[in-house]
This record gives sequence, structure tokens and C-alpha cells, in this order.
Amino acid sequence: MRVLLSEVNISEGKNDEVVEKVKAALLINNDVKMIDFNSDKDHNRSVFTYIGEPEKVLEATKRLADKAIELIDMTKHEGSHPRMGAVDVVPFVPVEGIEISEAVEIAREFGKYMGSKGVPVYFYEDAAVKPNRKSLVDIRKGEYEGLAEKMKKAEWIPDEGPKEFVPKSGALVTGVRFPLIAFNVNLRTNELEIANQIAKAVRNISGGFRFVRAIGLHITEKDMVQVSMNLINYSKTPIPRVMEAIRCEAARYGILISSAELVGPVPLLAIEEVVRHYLQVHDFSIKQIIETNLI
Amino acid sequence: MRVLLSEVNISEGKNDEVVEKVKAALLINNDVKMIDFNSDKDHNRSVFTYIGEPEKVLEATKRLADKAIELIDMTKHEGSHPRMGAVDVVPFVPVEGIEISEAVEIAREFGKYMGSKGVPVYFYEDAAVKPNRKSLVDIRKGEYEGLAEKMKKAEWIPDEGPKEFVPKSGALVTGVRFPLIAFNVNLRTNELEIANQIAKAVRNISGGFRFVRAIGLHITEKDMVQVSMNLINYSKTPIPRVMEAIRCEAARYGILISSAELVGPVPLLAIEEVVRHYLQVHDFSIKQIIETNLI
Repeated sequence: MRVLLSEVNISEGKNDEVVEKVKAALLINNDVKMIDFNSDKDHNRSVFTYIGEPEKVLEATKRLADKAIELIDMTKHEGSHPRMGAVDVVPFVPVEGIEISEAVEIAREFGKYMGSKGVPVYFYEDAAVKPNRKSLVDIRKGEYEGLAEKMKKAEWIPDEGPKEFVPKSGALVTGVRFPLIAFNVNLRTNELEIANQIAKAVRNISGGFRFVRAIGLHITEKDMVQVSMNLINYSKTPIPRVMEAIRCEAARYGILISSAELVGPVPLLAIEEVVRHYLQVHDFSIKQIIETNLI
Repeated sequence: MRVLLSEVNISEGKNDEVVEKVKAALLINNDVKMIDFNSDKDHNRSVFTYIGEPEKVLEATKRLADKAIELIDMTKHEGSHPRMGAVDVVPFVPVEGIEISEAVEIAREFGKYMGSKGVPVYFYEDAAVKPNRKSLVDIRKGEYEGLAEKMKKAEWIPDEGPKEFVPKSGALVTGVRFPLIAFNVNLRTNELEIANQIAKAVRNISGGFRFVRAIGLHITEKDMVQVSMNLINYSKTPIPRVMEAIRCEAARYGILISSAELVGPVPLLAIEEVVRHYLQVHDFSIKQIIETNLI
């Protein structure tokens, strides 16, 4: 079982006809499965999330991007979300049975292909070829409007495609990132200070776990506080380790965890570690799950 | 996602040619996925385990059984495993998205079909139509050799098919049972008495959980003891509840759990409850798992 995910952000969310044509190009060969789709008129942006065999995901992404580049004209684009191109950002996310290095090859091949079609391309995150291009925020700074000037600077020459500004398409950013898990833990208290202290204890920036981002929040409808987190590498910082660290920190204040939330899609391998940890089945494999035989 | 499992036991494990022909009949339409296969020469018996959409599983089971009935002659069968027919036992197991009542309909339709083909059929477990036919052991008592006499008794008239003994095919037993989970918990001690006490505490027969069967064992290679269990309804007696009850009982003796084992295939829904319980994500659904979109 080899599963790659792609989450393509295009700069069109107002013209339904264009969005439908792009979607049709993605789905025409029935070789990938769309698991999420969002279109936002204020942002004037649509996001297609789909999974499949890595090679099929690459093919489908090329189809989608070709159609979007054909139909979207950035000289006429207005929207509230930061963007710099018609096909704005294309992260590839390794879900199962595919190494990050293999996903990087896919991203690089996709970038090369789009470059050959006349689109300036930057590689980011795990696919970055230059250290100043790791962060999407840095690459996108100045947005579409500032791109013509930015591209004249030596440090912002594109990784693939034309070296000059292309008004119609703008620039495309593609790369690889690990699956992100949105995990929130609710505490049986309304003292925000406690959630803040625990968030500080578990997040990387203040001395906690390497792959945890966390903040404390007050949840009005529950009148409880929450440690709201992004786990950016569930393999190296697994969910149960974070859960138990929070439980332990909360106990210092005489507080228990009331519930938790896994928001949005979760890779099966993240669940494998939950079973291994709590049931102490150290060699449990997702291959033992009956349904995985059907994938 | 609707997944039914079938585990067909046929009375042939010596003649590879026959077994291969039966397997070919099962797999010819590529409409089910075989997840396990066992053939035993001493038992002179083979077991085919496969999953798929309920209707496809029914079709495939008919193909398999037709071929086995054609090729196997029970008047010549010898083997060490209890048996009463060429197609001996056919349990259908609802894995996901299918109610027990729907699986019972499938079993009944399969039984009716085999009856129409001239095979005496008994329904057992959840598909039983008579109270004395719940247990496979009761139905199979006396085995093939005693079947001619047994069928003459009013209480053993078959549920489908001919009322008289059919020497070539013998009788077929089909029904529905819930997925069984083999779960063993190892304790940091070699005192068998402690494992026995804990097994007694958690198993149904001596006052424990309704759907747990358990015994204490000594595991020589680890020099530890084990609570060895079958969980026969993970939905009503979920794995985490049993795990934590064992942890609690073991603590009475100052003993911790050293590890546990999930033996063989596990339904994804049993894993859902592990996540809900330990991560306290009370509304977690297996639909959130990315890979389930591919099933």
C-alpha cells in the first residue's frame, strides 16, 4: 500500500465554471480519490485534497495544474488570501508506504514539468533546494504584486521555469511536508493560565517536544480551557506521548483531561502508534487490520 | 464501506489439485480479496478467508462451494479434524458497515442455494433457526460417520435441502458470528496462580465481562505468565476496558503488564474504540483515517 496526498491551492474561488473545469481535469481518469474540496469566494481560492498511488497523484496533479494555468489569469485576480500564482501552492504529503525522499522526487518532477510549461517554480519545505526557501511564508512574502521585483533579486531566481516574471500565471510553489495532525486537549478548568503553562511545557519553541506547536485557548461554549496543538511529525513525536505529558502536567494543578479532539484527516500510521502505546502491543501493525487488505 | 468476511472450511487438504481448483473458483471473478488461506494434510482440511462487499462475498462463496461439492467425495474422507461435510462450515462475519441481521440474510440465502443443489444444510450461531442449533459443536456431534442416523431424529432434520443423508456431500453448516479478537496480556511475574486469578476476574463464566473467554498460561520462553483471551464481541466488551481491568487486578499483586499481543486480523472498528478510550476523543470515527477513503 503506497499512498501520497496532494493538496493543490488554486487562485480561483469565484468563477464556479472555471473551478468545475479544473476539478473535472483532476478527476477525469478516476486514478485518484478526492477526499476534500474547499472553494472560498472571499479568498478567491479553491483547495483540492486527493490521495492515490504516488505516480497517479503526480499525473493527476499535472492535469489539474495544466487546466488551472490555462484558465486563470492572475492579472485579474483579487482575493483576501495571500497568493503569488494561478496554481499557488502544491504540497505533496507522504501518507503511507512512501518515504519523504520519494515524495521529494515527485515534487521535483512536478516542478520541472510546470517549469517546462512556462511557469516559474519554487521548491519549499522538504523539497527546498536553497535554505532560504524552506518556509512558504518567506517565498510568498510580497505576494503576486511584488513578484516581478522580487524575481530580479539573485536570491529569488526560480528553481525551475522562466527566470522572468510571467504576468498570467505568476509563480508556483511546490514541495513536501509531513502529515500534520490537529490535536486539542480539553481540561476540566476555566483557568486559561493553566492551559498556557501546559502548552509552554509541551511545545518545541519553549523546551517541549520537537514536533509540537501549541497554544492555550478558552473554549466559551464549554467554559473550559484547551491545549490546542499541531503535531507536525507524528512519527517522531507520537500522539500518546504528548497526551500523557499533558495529563502529567495537568495533574500538578489537580486537573484532569475532560476530552480531546482529533480535527480532520489522520493517517492510519498515527493510529498504529496509539494502539502500540496504550495496549502495549509493541509489534502491532496496521497490516493486521482486516480492511487494509482492501486498499 | 460495507465489508463482509467469509471463512469457508472444506474437507480436502491432501489433494492439492482439488484445493487449487476450489481456490480458482473462488478467485476467478476477482470480486473478493483472500486475506488468509490454510491447508492441512493431517486434518485433510482447507480454510479460505476472504472479504468484500456482502453481495460479492455471497456470489464468491456459492462458486467456491459448488466446486468443492463437485470435487470432494466424503465417503472417501479421512482426517483428524471434526467434520460432517465436503463444505463443512461457512461462517459469515460482519466486519464493517453491515448489521448482523443483514449477514444472517446472506447466510440464509447461501443455505437455501446449497439446499437447492442437494446438500443438507444447518444454520448455526446468529443464523440459527432452532435453539438447539446455536452451537457448531452440538450440530457436528457424531461427525460425518454418525450423520445418517442423526438425520433420522426429528430434532436434526436439516434447515434446508434434502431430509435424507447424502453420502457424497454430507451436511453443511452455515451461519453468522461476530469477529473474534485474540488478545493476550503478559504479566511481569512467573506466578501462574496470578494469571489464573485475573483470567477468572475478567471472563464471563466466572463473573467477568460478558464477551470475554480467558485462561491463565505460563509462557516458557519469557518465563512470564499470560492472560490469554478471546474477545467475542469487541463492540460490547471493548479491548481497552478489558486491558484496564487486567491492569487493575494485577496491581493488587504489585505486578505490571509487560506487553500484550493482538493475534491475527483485527477489524478497524475495534481500533476506533482504542483511540476513543485512551485519547478521550469521544467522537473519533474511522472515517477520519485518510486511507479509509480508498476502500
